[in-house]
This record gives sequence, C-alpha cells and structure tokens, in this order.
Amino acid sequence: MPSKFTYERIDKNKALLLVVDHQIGLYQMARDQNAIVMKSNILAHAELGKIFNLPTILTTSAETGPNGPLPDEIIALHPDAPFIRRNGEVNAWDNAEFQAAVKATGRTQVILAGITTDVCTAFLALSLLDAGYTVFAHSDASGTFDTKTAREANDRMRAAGVQVLSLFAVACELMRDWRSTPGTKEMLPYFDKYLPEYGALARGHDAALKNGIPSGL
Amino acid sequence: MPSKFTYERIDKNKALLLVVDHQIGLYQMARDQNAIVMKSNILAHAELGKIFNLPTILTTSAETGPNGPLPDEIIALHPDAPFIRRNGEVNAWDNAEFQAAVKATGRTQVILAGITTDVCTAFLALSLLDAGYTVFAHSDASGTFDTKTAREANDRMRAAGVQVLSLFAVACELMRDWRSTPGTKEMLPYFDKYLPEYGALARGHDAALKNGIPSGL
Amino acid sequence: MPSKFTYERIDKNKALLLVVDHQIGLYQMARDQNAIVMKSNILAHAELGKIFNLPTILTTSAETGPNGPLPDEIIALHPDAPFIRRNGEVNAWDNAEFQAAVKATGRTQVILAGITTDVCTAFLALSLLDAGYTVFAHSDASGTFDTKTAREANDRMRAAGVQVLSLFAVACELMRDWRSTPGTKEMLPYFDKYLPEYGALARGHDAALKNGIPSGL
Amino acid sequence: MPSKFTYERIDKNKALLLVVDHQIGLYQMARDQNAIVMKSNILAHAELGKIFNLPTILTTSAETGPNGPLPDEIIALHPDAPFIRRNGEVNAWDNAEFQAAVKATGRTQVILAGITTDVCTAFLALSLLDAGYTVFAHSDASGTFDTKTAREANDRMRAAGVQVLSLFAVACELMRDWRSTPGTKEMLPYFDKYLPEYGALARGHDAALKNGIPSGL
Amino acid sequence: MPSKFTYERIDKNKALLLVVDHQIGLYQMARDQNAIVMKSNILAHAELGKIFNLPTILTTSAETGPNGPLPDEIIALHPDAPFIRRNGEVNAWDNAEFQAAVKATGRTQVILAGITTDVCTAFLALSLLDAGYTVFAHSDASGTFDTKTAREANDRMRAAGVQVLSLFAVACELMRDWRSTPGTKEMLPYFDKYLPEYGALARGHDAALKNGIPSGL
Amino acid sequence: MPSKFTYERIDKNKALLLVVDHQIGLYQMARDQNAIVMKSNILAHAELGKIFNLPTILTTSAETGPNGPLPDEIIALHPDAPFIRRNGEVNAWDNAEFQAAVKATGRTQVILAGITTDVCTAFLALSLLDAGYTVFAHSDASGTFDTKTAREANDRMRAAGVQVLSLFAVACELMRDWRSTPGTKEMLPYFDKYLPEYGALARGHDAALKNGIPSGL
Amino acid sequence: MPSKFTYERIDKNKALLLVVDHQIGLYQMARDQNAIVMKSNILAHAELGKIFNLPTILTTSAETGPNGPLPDEIIALHPDAPFIRRNGEVNAWDNAEFQAAVKATGRTQVILAGITTDVCTAFLALSLLDAGYTVFAHSDASGTFDTKTAREANDRMRAAGVQVLSLFAVACELMRDWRSTPGTKEMLPYFDKYLPEYGALARGHDAALKNGIPSGL
Amino acid sequence: MPSKFTYERIDKNKALLLVVDHQIGLYQMARDQNAIVMKSNILAHAELGKIFNLPTILTTSAETGPNGPLPDEIIALHPDAPFIRRNGEVNAWDNAEFQAAVKATGRTQVILAGITTDVCTAFLALSLLDAGYTVFAHSDASGTFDTKTAREANDRMRAAGVQVLSLFAVACELMRDWRSTPGTKEMLPYFDKYLPEYGALARGHDAALKNGIPSGL
Repeated sequence: MPSKFTYERIDKNKALLLVVDHQIGLYQMARDQNAIVMKSNILAHAELGKIFNLPTILTTSAETGPNGPLPDEIIALHPDAPFIRRNGEVNAWDNAEFQAAVKATGRTQVILAGITTDVCTAFLALSLLDAGYTVFAHSDASGTFDTKTAREANDRMRAAGVQVLSLFAVACELMRDWRSTPGTKEMLPYFDKYLPEYGALARGHDAALKNGIPSGL
Repeated sequence: MPSKFTYERIDKNKALLLVVDHQIGLYQMARDQNAIVMKSNILAHAELGKIFNLPTILTTSAETGPNGPLPDEIIALHPDAPFIRRNGEVNAWDNAEFQAAVKATGRTQVILAGITTDVCTAFLALSLLDAGYTVFAHSDASGTFDTKTAREANDRMRAAGVQVLSLFAVACELMRDWRSTPGTKEMLPYFDKYLPEYGALARGHDAALKNGIPSGL
Repeated sequence: MPSKFTYERIDKNKALLLVVDHQIGLYQMARDQNAIVMKSNILAHAELGKIFNLPTILTTSAETGPNGPLPDEIIALHPDAPFIRRNGEVNAWDNAEFQAAVKATGRTQVILAGITTDVCTAFLALSLLDAGYTVFAHSDASGTFDTKTAREANDRMRAAGVQVLSLFAVACELMRDWRSTPGTKEMLPYFDKYLPEYGALARGHDAALKNGIPSGL
Repeated sequence: MPSKFTYERIDKNKALLLVVDHQIGLYQMARDQNAIVMKSNILAHAELGKIFNLPTILTTSAETGPNGPLPDEIIALHPDAPFIRRNGEVNAWDNAEFQAAVKATGRTQVILAGITTDVCTAFLALSLLDAGYTVFAHSDASGTFDTKTAREANDRMRAAGVQVLSLFAVACELMRDWRSTPGTKEMLPYFDKYLPEYGALARGHDAALKNGIPSGL
Repeated sequence: MPSKFTYERIDKNKALLLVVDHQIGLYQMARDQNAIVMKSNILAHAELGKIFNLPTILTTSAETGPNGPLPDEIIALHPDAPFIRRNGEVNAWDNAEFQAAVKATGRTQVILAGITTDVCTAFLALSLLDAGYTVFAHSDASGTFDTKTAREANDRMRAAGVQVLSLFAVACELMRDWRSTPGTKEMLPYFDKYLPEYGALARGHDAALKNGIPSGL
Repeated sequence: MPSKFTYERIDKNKALLLVVDHQIGLYQMARDQNAIVMKSNILAHAELGKIFNLPTILTTSAETGPNGPLPDEIIALHPDAPFIRRNGEVNAWDNAEFQAAVKATGRTQVILAGITTDVCTAFLALSLLDAGYTVFAHSDASGTFDTKTAREANDRMRAAGVQVLSLFAVACELMRDWRSTPGTKEMLPYFDKYLPEYGALARGHDAALKNGIPSGL
Repeated sequence: MPSKFTYERIDKNKALLLVVDHQIGLYQMARDQNAIVMKSNILAHAELGKIFNLPTILTTSAETGPNGPLPDEIIALHPDAPFIRRNGEVNAWDNAEFQAAVKATGRTQVILAGITTDVCTAFLALSLLDAGYTVFAHSDASGTFDTKTAREANDRMRAAGVQVLSLFAVACELMRDWRSTPGTKEMLPYFDKYLPEYGALARGHDAALKNGIPSGL
Repeated sequence: MPSKFTYERIDKNKALLLVVDHQIGLYQMARDQNAIVMKSNILAHAELGKIFNLPTILTTSAETGPNGPLPDEIIALHPDAPFIRRNGEVNAWDNAEFQAAVKATGRTQVILAGITTDVCTAFLALSLLDAGYTVFAHSDASGTFDTKTAREANDRMRAAGVQVLSLFAVACELMRDWRSTPGTKEMLPYFDKYLPEYGALARGHDAALKNGIPSGL
C-alpha cells in the first residue's frame, strides 16, 4: 500500500480513446462474455469517443487475414480517426505509425480496450504505462478465450499500475456531473442503449409521470 | 407426454399449507440457498397461510434434540394451527396424528416446503401424491445440503407428478387476480417484504408519482 | 417414454406469436440473464412475428402501475396487433378479450415468451395446453428472478408437454429452409442483429471474399 | 509487500459511516447479489451507525429522477443525520456540502457502501483516500451490475489502499470485545437479523438450554 | 405424469446394496465432486449395507489393470460379501456370476452406486430395471468426468424410471423412524461421520446441555 | 414412469453414425464447452464410426458459405462415406438424398451429434424418432451457444424419447466387453487420445509395472 | 512489484501453529467450502502440528455459548498444547494470555487458520504481521459465510503481506524433501487421509506393483 | 503502485523454458481445468521450447513412484534437453543439478509451468525470483486440485512479482511480430493445434478464399 495515494481521475480533456483489434474474426475468440454483451460493449467503447469528443485512434492486426476487419459500425462512428492497419506487430506500440498517432494527440491518459484482453489490450497497456501514460483499461470492452484468462490479464495490468474499469465507471468518470455537457441529455440515451437496465429505469420513471396511477402499496 | 394435459391450478379454497421441519437446527443444513434468502423464504411460506386464509399445519421432528424448535416467528403467525411434534417418524405421513390433521381439513391440494428438501419435503410429497392429493412443492422454501441435492430432490418429485413452484408462482396462482381479496392491497406489502426487487419497483413508481421530475431521456 | 413419438414442428402457417408482459418495470425482475441479452431476446421475439408474418398478440398486466408499459420498440413493430391491457388477471388466459383474440386467429400452435417465466409465461402456457394448443415456450425471451426459478419453470412446462426452445431453434424451425421466403435474405440480417456471433461469421466470410488473402496456415 | 505493515483497525471513536446512493431505483441495478440479500445488507449497513453511535451521513443522487429516494427504513434509522441530496455530482466528494459534512465530523476513518460499487462507492472511496482518510469499503452493502464489475471495483479500491471488508468483519472490528458496550446485548440481535445463520446458532443453543434432551450421539 | 402414482419406498427387508467399480484407479475419473467428498460418499455407501444389514455385493472391472482394486476400507467392511471380479463385461449384469449373486438374494429393490455414473452405474441400473427390479441410484456415491456427464447420466436413469437419491435420502428412507433399530443410536454416529454438518449440530446441542450458558440473545 | 421399461442398448450391428454440420464456421458458435474439448469430442465422434465399423454418413449445411466445410480430419477418417451437402434444409431429414442414405443402411439405431445442439442435432433427432428409429444423441460432440441452450435442447430430446449419452457411455455401450473386437486393443488408444485422464491411468499403471518402486505408503 | 523479492519459506524450526476458533458451532457458518471438506481440512491443519512437531496453540471464543467447543478430535491431537479460552476478545491478539503464549514459543513464523476467515483468521493475521511475525494463512482450513467473503478476506490479508497457502503448499513447504524426517513415511499416510486423490495415486501404484498386469495400451 | 513501471517483455533470446513435474500421475491431481485442456496445454508448453528454440530443462519428482514419468510426447519433443530427475526435493531449486542446469543457460528470464501450481510451480517461481530471474508463470500449463487453489497460488506468485500469463500471451510475447521467424508460418499451425478456435478461424478464412460464395448478408 502506497503511503500516499493520489487519485488521478479520467479527464475528458486529457484522455485519448484506443480501439484495438475489435475485429470481427477475433471477436469469435472473445468468450469470457456473452456474444451479445461483447458486441454491445465494443460499440459502447467506440461511442465514448464520439460523445466525449475524445481523440480516437483505431488499429487492426492483419485485417485481410482471418482476424477480419473492424465492424462497419465502428468505422461509421469514426470515419476521420487515424486508423493504423498493422501487418505484423502484435503489440500496437511496436508500430511506429501507431505510436506517432498516439503521441500526436498530446494526451496523457489513455482509455483502451481490445481483443484479446491478454494480448492486444495487455501488451499495449503495459507499453503505454512504461511510456509514462496513465492507463485505463475498459474491461467490459475487452474479450478473450475464457474468464480465467480475462481475470489474469486484468490482474497483470492492475499489478503494473493500470486502472481496470467497467463501462459505467469509465463513462461516469468522464462525465463527472449530470449537469455537464455531455451530461444527462447525451448520457441517458447512451445508457439506455448500452446499459438497458438503467434505461428501463428511466423509461419506467417517465411512464409513471406520464400516466401512472398509485401502486396501492 | 400425456395425450391430454389438464391444468389443475392451486385454488385457495381447496389448498392446505404444510410447514415441515423448518426448525432452527435443521436450517443450518440448508445450504443450497443463501441463509438470508432461506430464512426469508421460510417466513414467506408460513405467511401464505395467513394471507390466503389456508388451513395450515405445522410439524417438527424431534424438536428437543439438535433439530431444534421452529422459529418463533412462524409460531407467532399460526398460534392456533395444528402442530404435530413428531418424535421419530422421518416422513410426517407416517405419523397418525399428522395424517389425521391433514385429512380433517378436507382439502385436496397441498402446498408444502420443508428442510431438508430431499427427505422432509420429498418423502411427504410422494406419500401425499400416493394418497391422492395434488401436491405443490414450494421450492424456494425448501432447503438442503447443496444445489445438486436440491435439484435431484425436485427432479424426483417432478417425475412422480409433483408440481414444483417458486414463491412468486405459488403466491400468484393462489391470488389469480390483483382485484381479488386478497389482491393488491394484501399482496403488494407481502411482495415488498419477500421479493424486495418487486417492492422497490412499486416504491419507485409511487415516488415518481409523488414528487418525480422527468428523467430527461 | 411414449411408445410412439410424433414430431410436431412449428409451422409458420399454423403458429401464433404471443408477447406477454414484456414490460419495462417487470424487465427489472428478469435477472436469470444479463440485462443486455434479455432486452435483445425480447426484441428478437417480437420481430419473429414481423418476419414470419405471424398473427401476433400483445398483452400487459396493469401497465399504468409499477409494471410499466411495453418498450416502445415492440409497439412500433406491431402497431396494429391486438393489444390486451389486463387490469387484474395474472394469467392472460383468464381475460376474456385475450382468449377471444387468440381464438380469432384460428391458429393451433402458440409461440410465447414473457416476464416472469414462472408466472406470466408458465401459467398461460399451461392454460393453452389445457385448451388444446401445441405450445412452444421461447425460453430465451422469458426472464425471471434467478436461474433456479427459470429452470424450474421450464421444467414444469416441459413436464406438462410444452416444447421449450431457444431463439435459434424457434427461428430455424419456422424457416426450415434457407431457400424459403423468409430465408437467407431475411434471416441473415435478423441473426446478425440478435445472434451476433453468427452475424460476425457471415461478415468475416464476406470480408474474406471481398479482399482477403490466404492466412498462411 | 511493505517492509512494515501497520494494522489500523476500525475504531468506533474515529469512524464515520456513509450511506451512498442506496436508492430504490439504483437498487434495481445491483445484481451481483441476490435482491433479498442486497436489501438486508443495505439496512445492516445503515444500522451500524445506530448501534455504534457513529456519525452518519446520507447522500443521494438526483433522487427525484429514476434513481429514486432512499428506502424509508434508512431514513427512519437516521432522521437527524446530515442528508445531502446531490443534483449532479456523480462523486459525492465533488459536492461541497457533502465534503463539509464529512469534515465537520472530525473523524479520520470512513466506512462506506453504495450503489453502484464501481461508481458511487469506488469514486468516493478513492477521493477520500486521496484526502487522507483511512477508508473501509463495506463490500456486502455495495452492489452493481454483475459479479465481475463488483470484483473489479473492489480490486481497484484495494490496489489504491482501501480496506474491503464484509459485514461481519466491519461489525466485529467495531465491537472488538463481546463484553464491550455495544457488545453481546446489542450485537446478537443485530446478527440474528442480518446474519440469520449466526442467529439460528444462538437460538438453537438457548433452546437446548431451555428444554433440550441429549441427542443420543 | 402417471394418472396414479404409487410411492414404493426403500424397504430394508427388500433391498440389496451394490458396490460397483468403486476402484481406486477409476476414482481418479470421478471429478464431478470434490475428491474428499467422493471418497467419503463411497465409504458411506458401503457402510449402509453394514448398518442396515443389507445383502451386499461387490464387483470390480479388470482390477489388476489400471482401474485398480477396491479401497481396503470397503473390503474390510464386507469381508464375506459376494465379490465378483469382472474381467471384461462393462455392464455387470452381463456377467453371469454377478447376475446369479443378485438373484440369489431374493431381493426386489436395488440400491447402487458406481464409477463412472454414466457407464458403470447407468448401464447396470437400466438392466436391473429391465429385469424388473425397483432401482435406487445413490447419486452422491457415483462419480464421473464432470458435472454435465453426471447430470445427464442421472437424467437418463430417471427418464427410465430409476429413483435418483442423495445419501441422506437413502439413509432416511431405509431408517424411516429414529426409534427403530437401526435408529438414533446407529445413525447419529453414521451422520456424524458422513454428514458432518449434521454431526456438528448434535455435538453442539449436547455441548450446550453439558456446560452451556445462555447466549444473551 | 413407464410400467415396464425395456433397455435397448446400442448395438454395433444395428447402429448408424451421423456427423451433422460439424463445420469449422459453425464450430465458432459452440460455446457451451471449451473449444479444445469441443474439437476433441467432434473428432472422437467421427472416429467411433471407424473403430466400430459403423455405417457413417456425413452432412453439411451450405458449406461454401459462412458455415464452412467439415474439418479435414473428419473427411480423412471417412473418405468413402456418403456425404450429403445440403444447400438449404436446416433439418437434414428434409433432404431426400440424406433420408435415402440413412434408409439405405438398413440400420435401426442412430447415434448422432451436430452443431448446433438445439437446431442441427435436435431437429434431426426428433425427425428420426418420429420415423421410428431409436436415437442416441452423443451430447459431448454437440455444441451450441451456451450451456443453458445445450441443456434445454437435450431436455427437449430426452422428453421425446431420445437417449442422451456421453462419449464414454456411447463408446462403452458399443464395446460392451473389453475382450471383444474392438476391445482393449482398439479402445485403450482411443481413450488415451480422447479421454486423456483415462489414458494417463493406463500409462501410469504400465510405468509402475515397468520400473516402479513402492511408494512407501 | 518490489525491486527485490526475498522468499521466506516456512521453516519447521521457526514456525508456530495456531488453531483459531475451529469450534463446532462456528463450523456451521463455514459455507464457502463443502462441509465434509471443511472438516477434513480443519483436522489436517491441527495434525500438521503433530507431524512436524510444531509448537501449537489452541484458542476458542466463548465456547460455552453458541460457538461451542472445539471438536474432540482436535483436543485429542493436542492434549498438552496451550489452550486459551477467550471470553470476549474477537481478535485473539487482544487477549494477553494468548499473546504471551505465542511469544513464549520464540517462533517468528506463524501458520494459522480459523473460522471465520474474515474475522477470526484475518484480524489475528493482521495483528501478527503488525507485531513483526511472518504470517502464513492456511486458506483451506479457514471458512466463512460464502466464497465472496473468503476471497475478499484472503485478498485483504495478501495485500497486507500475509502469505495465503493451500494445505498441500503448507505441508510441502514444511517438509521440503521427501527424504527428510518427517518425509515420505509420515506424509504419505497424511496425504492419503487428507488429499485422498493423492493417496489413491499411491495406492494404485502399489497395487500395480503387487499384482498388476499390463493394461494393453 | 510503483511510481515508475518498466515493462520487461519475454525475449526469445533471454528466455529459458522449464517443464516442471508434468508427470502422468500428478496429472490426475490437476482438476482446476478439464483434463483434455490440461493435456493440450502441457504439450503446448513443451512445444514452445521447440518453436522458439529456447533452452529447455525438464525435471520430475520421484518418477518411479506414484507421480510417474513425463508423458512420452514431451520427452520426444526434447530428447536432448537436460533432464533432472529429483528424488526428494519438492522445490526443484533445492536440487543442485537443476540449479546448475538453469545457471548454465545464462538466461535471465524463465518461463515455467508445473503440476501442482501451488507447490511445484509456485515454490520454484519464488526461488527463481529470489535468485534474480524475471519469472513468467504460464498459468494455462499449470494445474492443481481445484480452481480456488490455482487462483491463490497465482495470486501468491503475482504478489511477489511473478508475471502470470496465458498460453496465448506467452506465445505472442515471444513472437512479437507475425513477420518474424518464427512467425505466421510456424505459429499458425501451433495455434491450430493448441487454440483450435483460432485455427478454425484461419481454416474458415482460407476455405472462403478457396471456394466460398457470398453469404447473402
């Protein structure tokens, strides 16, 4: 335990979003989460860049091979983002173009997720940490062969100093206050889409206001 | 599969409630469910008799020994119910006084739960079935050593023709219509106590009506 | 085991689709599946009626109370379907209007799903069976408090003669042949949306055809 | 591993209790624990303040919206506690009134729990740690979307130096000696209510003393 | 569901006990239960024959090969029991000597357990059923490769009409009344050994009687 | 429970083996088992035909599309088997060529496995049952989206009268006696490959014979 | 990660064994492990002191109350060990007599286990660490309410610097070499009793040597 | 958290591979993973040395006793590797010959796996760390009694500074770039064998290129 802990929160003005190897072939390897959930989380990850106006970088590994391309939905969200198609490097940091793109943003915090967690996410996260970045691994949007591998990959990153966070935590740490911009107006529809139990709570609340009658409790 | 299925529902005018060996010592054996849940379900079971005004019979096995007495809360709910303290018979049906008490009610449907599921509930359920009763095993209020044993005991009963039901199913099949008596007025507080996620839904709905403002979604 | 088994398949010309109490309040009770998956399955269920042009009936229970309305997405899919808003009956079959709507379709097979599985789905399924229908419970689109309750509710239905099927099984038993209408053209986009691991398989295949290069294996 | 570990125990004269966003709407999001258990643990958390006479602060997030109010039971336990209703800040520490209330207690140890674990509990816990407090996260009374998220949130807090404790550990570390005040007299009924397996142990013991006969073992 | 169910209980005067391939090599294959539990259950199974004075037959499969011999503890319990060492037949019923030994007992009910559940137990159970016996599979004392295989093997037997029972259910159905012989005197030490949570209940009860003081609750 | 059960065992002279849609694309959908295990079981299934000299039929669904071809290993095992490449029919029984191939074998028992369990295996199994075959679903070699779907598909088949068996049970019911042909000589290497814990038992036994020294126990 | 790690192994000449509150009442609270396993592990823990001739100290909490006495088996193993019966202190270190007994041994390493893990084991482990001892928590012999609580308690101890070890690791780290005393002669029977899968391995090996014949593989 | 993290990757020119006690007897103890998976991972581990041309050392513990020899497959892969047969030392580092063999390689990074994880892997890993090596525990190729023991052993190693990695992570960190040697040509067949879901992805991709037609999506 450190004698003194400093809480460095994600700051939308300092943070960069990385979409790492969320390719449709590799997606078949991501079995630590239900496939519907995994896809929803991948799209939610990419959309964070849009809503919080974060510099976003896309990268893929050998996308003309079995790993396949990124889902069209992600490319449609970020048509103008730097997109580095690696042809050999497993660790994206080993690709000079990718490294340059990251550095060009001038950001000091990195939010990332990828498939697989133990390779694509972890290798890059550790390299970024080594390079001096504060690293936030968005764990819901990373996937790998099984839950044991996911847990051990996250443990490895955490032991090195990476912050491992859920979708809700990343989004709320970015937003900070429901009265901000983006705030309620942008984030409620986002949660309605990607955390539907929260969306249903809001829908039910509004339905009660519109034409509800007392429950009788 | 029967060529013709007849759905015999629980009828509050035909049903009898049995509280079987829900003793505080035996309660320690019930590990297929969390202990807090198990206790809640045991009390919910006993309270069904109260709310639906069902003839209710209590029985225990060797209660001055390690099995211990029934929880005071159950006795307080049914101070006047027939209470058969068995001193040796494992299967309550083997106790003449118990059998007489059941027959005296004139009921043809039996709702029962007990600890342990594989012995106290299952043996009695099978004897009742053999004796011609329609038997409803309230599975949430039965407990046993582990989930495997619970599942196999329920499978055994089901194969013989016992209906195995959840708390919510027993309660709703008894109520049938929220406009009945008992209906909303009696059952919402009951669900608020024993199915608190449903209670919270009603509380949240009423809170919205009282002083809610639109969510902004 | 029956001496002779007859396999009655779902037939798109004989089948009726029932959407039972898929309300946004009750949705909070459905915890045997991940919430994202549950929502996806509910929408997939409703969309089956659209794609296979099945007579579809919607019903809700006390929707101005805590149970809340159906999701807008479902209503938008079936704007002209009979929609029976029950005010008290737990078992939809007890509602004369609902029963009339079902009978009016002239269909003999019923595909249904609802929340909760043990009450809304099971009670209705058993009544339909009793009334002579062949009943198909689409289990992926039913939800309840926990996995134990879901399993026991499905076991109860199965013991009575209900067919309990997954989304993929319901859809494929309706389609039968990829060369039919609806067939590949309608069903691949449907699976891409609701079984994304299957969609990704098709996407990856098509990407390989478009600009793939050999893997080197 | 630190070369020298100092064990700072919870001290009832130094500790402050925080009840964070235990709201009835947010409660629907807490699915890493059974809903009955979650509710029991939330009430157990609030009652710790009462029994150990700890300064207690209540806070909610946008309680007129979907998140809803605190359960009446909690408010009834702490009618005079500072109660900060936040209208936008996700992290309670960002609310000046809340921060002032915490500081006004003069306490140096904080026991907290909230919904959701990864946002409401973790963000505040990390801010408190940063501000120099010793932080005890009562994990049984925090809830979130699923067990993976709960575990990762607790791992994040632990890595920063937060102590993550069960209900039994918090209560026993506060009590220290059964002969204290509060001690057996206050804590046995508390455990009987919130850890019923322990309560049943005491009930069974007392029943044996009252009218037990040897088991025959 | 049968129109009329007859509950045939295990009767200690009609029952026969079979110990099937509980060999120390095969024991390594039994991974659906913890190894300590598996061993305890195997010994508990064999000891049932001793306590209830049931005709008991031991059999092994190719015991000089990798399957290995029975544990010495079992042989010591039944030094004079018929012991059929099969050299090839997988299904013990295919061995004439074994079949003769079973028939020689004149019993009509068979309690059996073996390793593996899906082969040694299931094949023999189905053959016994076919031969007209009432068959009770003691599931806690059968083991196999994994829980899925165990469940499916038990499901297969149950569908054919085998009764699948836990250790506690077998023992209690044999005993029927704690006042019988064997009864409390024989069975409490048995449960203390093989169901230690029940034994601890009795020990704790007796300790309270001996020198307990009130809990203070 | 049937009043009289007849145990129809798999007979190598009556049985037919079906390899159904074990295609490399569909294999990605099979997530109810670990991928390594799934592949091993698929190959074990195909090899049964070889070892027991069973008439074997291969079939695929739209293999030039995303479902992909059968693994080369399977085709290499059965170069001369009838191989029906279906272009549209989901249920192989709907394909006239396939149906003819099955009938041409003159066999009355069918052992089958496929991907997915709920569609490819279950639909065909039910059709075969309807057509009068005795059907054995080899559950270890069928795969589907998740364990819940697998369990429900097997339950559906079992309720109709299909025998659901593990790899070990299928192989042993075919072999019957270790002294047969095929027997020890053929089956030990088979188990060494596909049930390696059993293979290791034999290897360890032989190693002890070769150069072991007493353990000292 | 520490810049330099020193591996301090358990040394039988430096180590002390503590048996903490392994009482038969508290044993009912230990539900994170199967009850049979828990009892076996508790006895294995106590027997370590015997085999390795470690100074051993027993302690209980309020043993005339519901917590009950230690199992007779443990007392029989250590009739002459210091036995501190605490009447109020939850943390044994707060009891002067216990602290003195520990110090009197002159040992610097402590192996401990207790019920519950989060209170009896963890509190004492942290106090011992604070007092300068090297602490080894034998996790298999500690038990608590559920697996989540066990994991969090072990995480708390580990974060502070406690070594959390399995039974096999504690025993092997004490033994170090099978040729030592105690070594094979003492430890094989010990493992045969407490890790029966290892015992069966030795038994099978010896059986092969005695009268085995080649497997035929 | 370290103020500065340095990411030391596995370097094929600095790394040494250790195969520790992967013996066929001990293999029966490895139950935290499916037996088929465990065997596959053990062979994958040994083959890493072959593909990456890493100095490899084999060691066994008392291989003429119950632990048994290494699988023939491993010895065949490394016929010329140093092979240290320990006769007593549990921790391989305590064996002078083994220690000399390790030092003789001149390597500074060690990749190891063994059975059991908590003893054979962990003890050696901690000794290597103490001796100044950077240690990579390949967790997929270590096995032990159950998942709890595996997790705790890995946690113990991680807390000391060991890197705990999956098979995919070890292989990819060694390879670094698919264009290296070894690269695609060597590693795709390796993954096809040991991570068959990845192999199937490549097979499906190549099949599409060879004779695929568009899916129709």
